[in-house]
Amino acid sequence: MNSIIGYYSTKFGELWEKSLDDLIKEAAVGVLKEVNIEKEQIDAIFLGNMLGGIIEGKLLLEAHLAGLLDIHIPIYRIEAACASGGMAFQMADTYLKSHPNSTVMVLGAEKMTDISAEEVTEALAAAASEDEQMAGLTFPGVYALLAQLYLSKYHYTEEHLASIPVKNHAHALLNDKAHFRRMVTIDNVLESPYVAYPLKVLDSSPISDGAAAVILSNDSHLIKKTKSLQILSSVVATDSIAIAKRKNLNELAATRIAGEKAFREASLQHKDINIMEVHDCFSIAEILALEDLGFWKKGEGGARAQEMITHRESGNNLIVNTSGGLKAAGHPVGGTGIKQIGEIYLQLTQQAGQRQINSCRFGLAHNVGGSGGVAVVSIFGV
Amino acid sequence: MNSIIGYYSTKFGELWEKSLDDLIKEAAVGVLKEVNIEKEQIDAIFLGNMLGGIIEGKLLLEAHLAGLLDIHIPIYRIEAACASGGMAFQMADTYLKSHPNSTVMVLGAEKMTDISAEEVTEALAAAASEDEQMAGLTFPGVYALLAQLYLSKYHYTEEHLASIPVKNHAHALLNDKAHFRRMVTIDNVLESPYVAYPLKVLDSSPISDGAAAVILSNDSHLIKKTKSLQILSSVVATDSIAIAKRKNLNELAATRIAGEKAFREASLQHKDINIMEVHDCFSIAEILALEDLGFWKKGEGGARAQEMITHRESGNNLIVNTSGGLKAAGHPVGGTGIKQIGEIYLQLTQQAGQRQINSCRFGLAHNVGGSGGVAVVSIFGV
Repeated sequence: MNSIIGYYSTKFGELWEKSLDDLIKEAAVGVLKEVNIEKEQIDAIFLGNMLGGIIEGKLLLEAHLAGLLDIHIPIYRIEAACASGGMAFQMADTYLKSHPNSTVMVLGAEKMTDISAEEVTEALAAAASEDEQMAGLTFPGVYALLAQLYLSKYHYTEEHLASIPVKNHAHALLNDKAHFRRMVTIDNVLESPYVAYPLKVLDSSPISDGAAAVILSNDSHLIKKTKSLQILSSVVATDSIAIAKRKNLNELAATRIAGEKAFREASLQHKDINIMEVHDCFSIAEILALEDLGFWKKGEGGARAQEMITHRESGNNLIVNTSGGLKAAGHPVGGTGIKQIGEIYLQLTQQAGQRQINSCRFGLAHNVGGSGGVAVVSIFGV
Repeated sequence: MNSIIGYYSTKFGELWEKSLDDLIKEAAVGVLKEVNIEKEQIDAIFLGNMLGGIIEGKLLLEAHLAGLLDIHIPIYRIEAACASGGMAFQMADTYLKSHPNSTVMVLGAEKMTDISAEEVTEALAAAASEDEQMAGLTFPGVYALLAQLYLSKYHYTEEHLASIPVKNHAHALLNDKAHFRRMVTIDNVLESPYVAYPLKVLDSSPISDGAAAVILSNDSHLIKKTKSLQILSSVVATDSIAIAKRKNLNELAATRIAGEKAFREASLQHKDINIMEVHDCFSIAEILALEDLGFWKKGEGGARAQEMITHRESGNNLIVNTSGGLKAAGHPVGGTGIKQIGEIYLQLTQQAGQRQINSCRFGLAHNVGGSGGVAVVSIFGV
């Protein structure tokens, strides 16, 4: 069985003293040290990065990494916008299925803060439809339209949305790698400026630098010597980049399709999942994720969010985004998918320290590219 | 056994009336029609593209393709500079090894001519080392240094290099999809302006638009119904992006390492290979490729090139770059790796029409990213 045997993450945040290569190297060296293995024991590396080409003119990151580690093994760079990390993980899991007794590294990294916020926004728009951009629709604007539809259809308010960042900021207080470690209140969120109505600054994940890496293995000897977590399923689904082409704007179909298949392949039911990291790039996205993944009925999410039933202090059986989510832990886009999986690994192997959730056995990670053009859903169990 | 069951390529050249999405769609629809299967029979797609993000601000091409074909299946975008196509192919081959009775598409595409030559040159530099660029070394400059070392060490002249484009232009005369279909002479090459001494314009592959796609399958029922070619091996190796960090500038180590492993896995010897497409981005690159792959001894390549022993009319057992190579067939970077494999497919399945080479049984395709930061070597047999 393919298993995660170690995880390392850099700090997420505005890391002005660190370059993309610095972040990649720190994560690669860090995870090898964490697992206590040599680079010679790694058979291949899967590297998720979105913006290196646009922001820094850095492509062929395979060769950057080969040079940084002085290796010649296969290295694959995968780009799927904000799902680059999750996609890299899913490919690594696929690779191991035909490579017995093998061990691979999956690394996600992004360097976003060396340019202005306007330039980053333009770079991120590479994951949006050209037609929609030309019509004046920004990337937050797409999620704002989804939020408007949701609030209108199910009679919710901006206050319901605001519950998501309040919970995730509370969770991030316990994560010393998080970009933001401060409480925010419902009022703070509601009083923050609009980015695109009805979404406000505090409904939105930040621009972050950071990198994260996991080691996967199916070498039973190595797995026995480490703290390991089984990968029960990892599934990718896709959808049209333009929301205008989608049949239903009440969901992200890619999340629904990937989620259904991931549960089927893992032979688990929703009630089995105790801990979950979902893609809360905007507050509406976490609500849609819980519904699209089948945990909540359509339209129920606004009320459930307001009840904060997935808060770590709720005492419930399913806690969501203990890392702080994209919102508070930060969102270095290529790194996010790996950090999500890393958080599930730490929690399910009882290594989450002060933010450990008790008695969790099964977990799920959900990573989205663009406004749902790609979704990756992975399920894990000890 | 994983097999190629069909191939389609757009015209390569300056296709001003076609966008990146147009090229992707033409190749995707074209290859489905060629094999006579429906999109519903495709289980996953692997898409190689280098410059969509930098040139057009287009990332998340997975979702572009999902929208163009109205599908939700897993789609993976791989970027490895000029080896993006070959890497996508190698990943697809890996995917099939753990997915029995499956069929996948591999597509490579690039749109390069909508911006100025200077802008393209800057974009392509994303596959070169930052330090070397800052020291004034362009991408052709890196290959020029390799060429200078080679000519100096083995006492060859620019005339030896010139034999490569003369042969490849002669081959492209028979390829109606080629970017250039005209003979060039040794004198034409020698009289063309220097790009970076000793490499001249006619030593260099062009800036092209184009896309190519293959269908791979391990579904024996489907394979029987089509003209199929077995994939005997497909191997990736990597190296430092900066040539300053490499131990030996007399070779591309990634090519040597990938080649050795590809022959081992295919259980073939060099004399078995009858037809080959190698990565002739500059004339020196084809000479190094033949040596690094083990067909010619180190230092022998200049003389062998001048003898044109791999020319289709040489009557020899090994013919190289019947498509015209990157030099004359064109080099839409993400598309090149797939076009190379497609050419081998057409030749070994006797579908190469007027450029058919008789009695070829085994073939090899060799795709390079950057100045050797990545190499992919794949071996095929009927």
